[in-house]
Amino acid sequence: MRILTGIQPSGKLHIGNYFGAIKPATELQEQGDAYIFIANYHAMTTVQDGPALREMTKDVALDYLACGIDPEKTALYRQSDLPEVHELAWLLSVVCPMGLLERCHSYKDKIAKGIAASHGLFAYPVLMAADILAVQSNVVPVGKDQKQHVEVTRDLAIKFNNQFGEVFTIPEPAIRENVAVVPGIDGQKMSKSYDNTIEIFAEGKPLKKRVMSIVTDSKELEDPKEPEGDNVFALYKLFASEEEQNDLAERYRAGGLGYGHAKLELLEKMNEHFGPIREKRRELAANMDYVEDVLKTGAEKARVLACATLQKARQAAGLE
Amino acid sequence: MRILTGIQPSGKLHIGNYFGAIKPATELQEQGDAYIFIANYHAMTTVQDGPALREMTKDVALDYLACGIDPEKTALYRQSDLPEVHELAWLLSVVCPMGLLERCHSYKDKIAKGIAASHGLFAYPVLMAADILAVQSNVVPVGKDQKQHVEVTRDLAIKFNNQFGEVFTIPEPAIRENVAVVPGIDGQKMSKSYDNTIEIFAEGKPLKKRVMSIVTDSKELEDPKEPEGDNVFALYKLFASEEEQNDLAERYRAGGLGYGHAKLELLEKMNEHFGPIREKRRELAANMDYVEDVLKTGAEKARVLACATLQKARQAAGLE
Repeated sequence: MRILTGIQPSGKLHIGNYFGAIKPATELQEQGDAYIFIANYHAMTTVQDGPALREMTKDVALDYLACGIDPEKTALYRQSDLPEVHELAWLLSVVCPMGLLERCHSYKDKIAKGIAASHGLFAYPVLMAADILAVQSNVVPVGKDQKQHVEVTRDLAIKFNNQFGEVFTIPEPAIRENVAVVPGIDGQKMSKSYDNTIEIFAEGKPLKKRVMSIVTDSKELEDPKEPEGDNVFALYKLFASEEEQNDLAERYRAGGLGYGHAKLELLEKMNEHFGPIREKRRELAANMDYVEDVLKTGAEKARVLACATLQKARQAAGLE
Repeated sequence: MRILTGIQPSGKLHIGNYFGAIKPATELQEQGDAYIFIANYHAMTTVQDGPALREMTKDVALDYLACGIDPEKTALYRQSDLPEVHELAWLLSVVCPMGLLERCHSYKDKIAKGIAASHGLFAYPVLMAADILAVQSNVVPVGKDQKQHVEVTRDLAIKFNNQFGEVFTIPEPAIRENVAVVPGIDGQKMSKSYDNTIEIFAEGKPLKKRVMSIVTDSKELEDPKEPEGDNVFALYKLFASEEEQNDLAERYRAGGLGYGHAKLELLEKMNEHFGPIREKRRELAANMDYVEDVLKTGAEKARVLACATLQKARQAAGLE
């Protein structure tokens, strides 16, 4: 089973990204033949600054490798190292009814958020279809908001196959249902746009300050406290074993444990969890030749598939 | 001065194509460094049949080489041998406002004519811009109906250069003003869609039948006739020297020359003109390895330019 997923470079990683996207991605490599690409072409629909995009792309590679993507198991590559997807996107474009793209709500949502209505943004689902079909992926793990794009991909693949002959594998979406809900320091969903994140590569004082500012109710130190619904406890659960969770819950309910202490325990857990990851990221950052090698090797593996797909599609379309 | 033009494969060539597109194209090679591509990617917006597109593409190459494209002077290539244009089209798409494409009347015209409203058809001007900018063309000779697309190309090139740095040469359109008006056998503009064409590679009986069916007025053999406004005379003028034109005009006015005779004179002129071209096409068709070589060599010449452009654009955009 071949599994493909893409990641948009998006700046400093936070705990919400980690549990919502990175951990699920690292688990794919245990489930099948995993391909993960850094979607730098897609990112150009919002980031039109060469040095910034280059930096963000490098950061994603470091982040994912530090967090556990194993290059022996996963082909990790930059989308821009597989430029063949653009030719494939054209071949899909000619069988893509305008109405199919006009109905994509992600385009409308982005426009509503103030992103410029460019042709790139509009054509994005076609390029995403090409990304998926190029490697003949069977399964595409996506969040609910991306499900429609996998449906577009299926539609285009079926249309092309009907018109020109069997070229593409029809992929299935795998909707991530059980993604952990990660609260931000203000209790809303953790998100860069709410400015309530805790970054995973923050350390020392800035990290401590951020953790200590998690919003709680105003119970005194000696009061018994209810762990369910408390933000500190919700974050603690992400890092602790069941036993540890029960232990902390008991101490919450007993009274005598202040939120300040609970926060310090959370901080300790976070440092335990992310310590080795931070260390690994530092090592990788000091060894960019290795990182570049990983990306090139991943791209080569994906290109073998993409070139074979493209060859079949070109032949079927009468381009050669 | 670098000049680029594209040709859509469109079936059997007729006299209208010859004087409206092919002859002007063969003249480019005397005016500068000429690049002519067979737009088979574009053709996919209407021709979605692999074997048919392959055949049409080959026919265009034979037609143009037979009609005088000199591979020593012109880089003649298949668009599909320069797949780099698609990546470039993406880089332009992210700076292309949707409104720019929505205002293109050729899209609306084609939809009105019943062509399916595909994303390929909509995105066509972006790919055309990439075709032009890839080879850093200075001049793009176009008919009036294509002028808007060159304006889109200029807009996109300027936007990209402003956003990312100087990458693209801004091309100038060269509007073909003095293109001969070629009447069809019914007196309307010669066009496949009016079914009034005379094919240039038709010969013998079918050609004679076609020429003899050119519509004229109903004057008798002995009547004096007015050459201006007569379809036979209008076609004759395309092939004859000024002296020959004056001579025929005089005989028209003198009376005693029937339209049937005039048609036979036209037929003779046509055979004189197209005879060597037909012969050359037969020779080329018997030597497809040579034709393939010409196309490959043309593509290699264009690719050197396209790859250099792409490299600059990728660097500027932060993709490498």
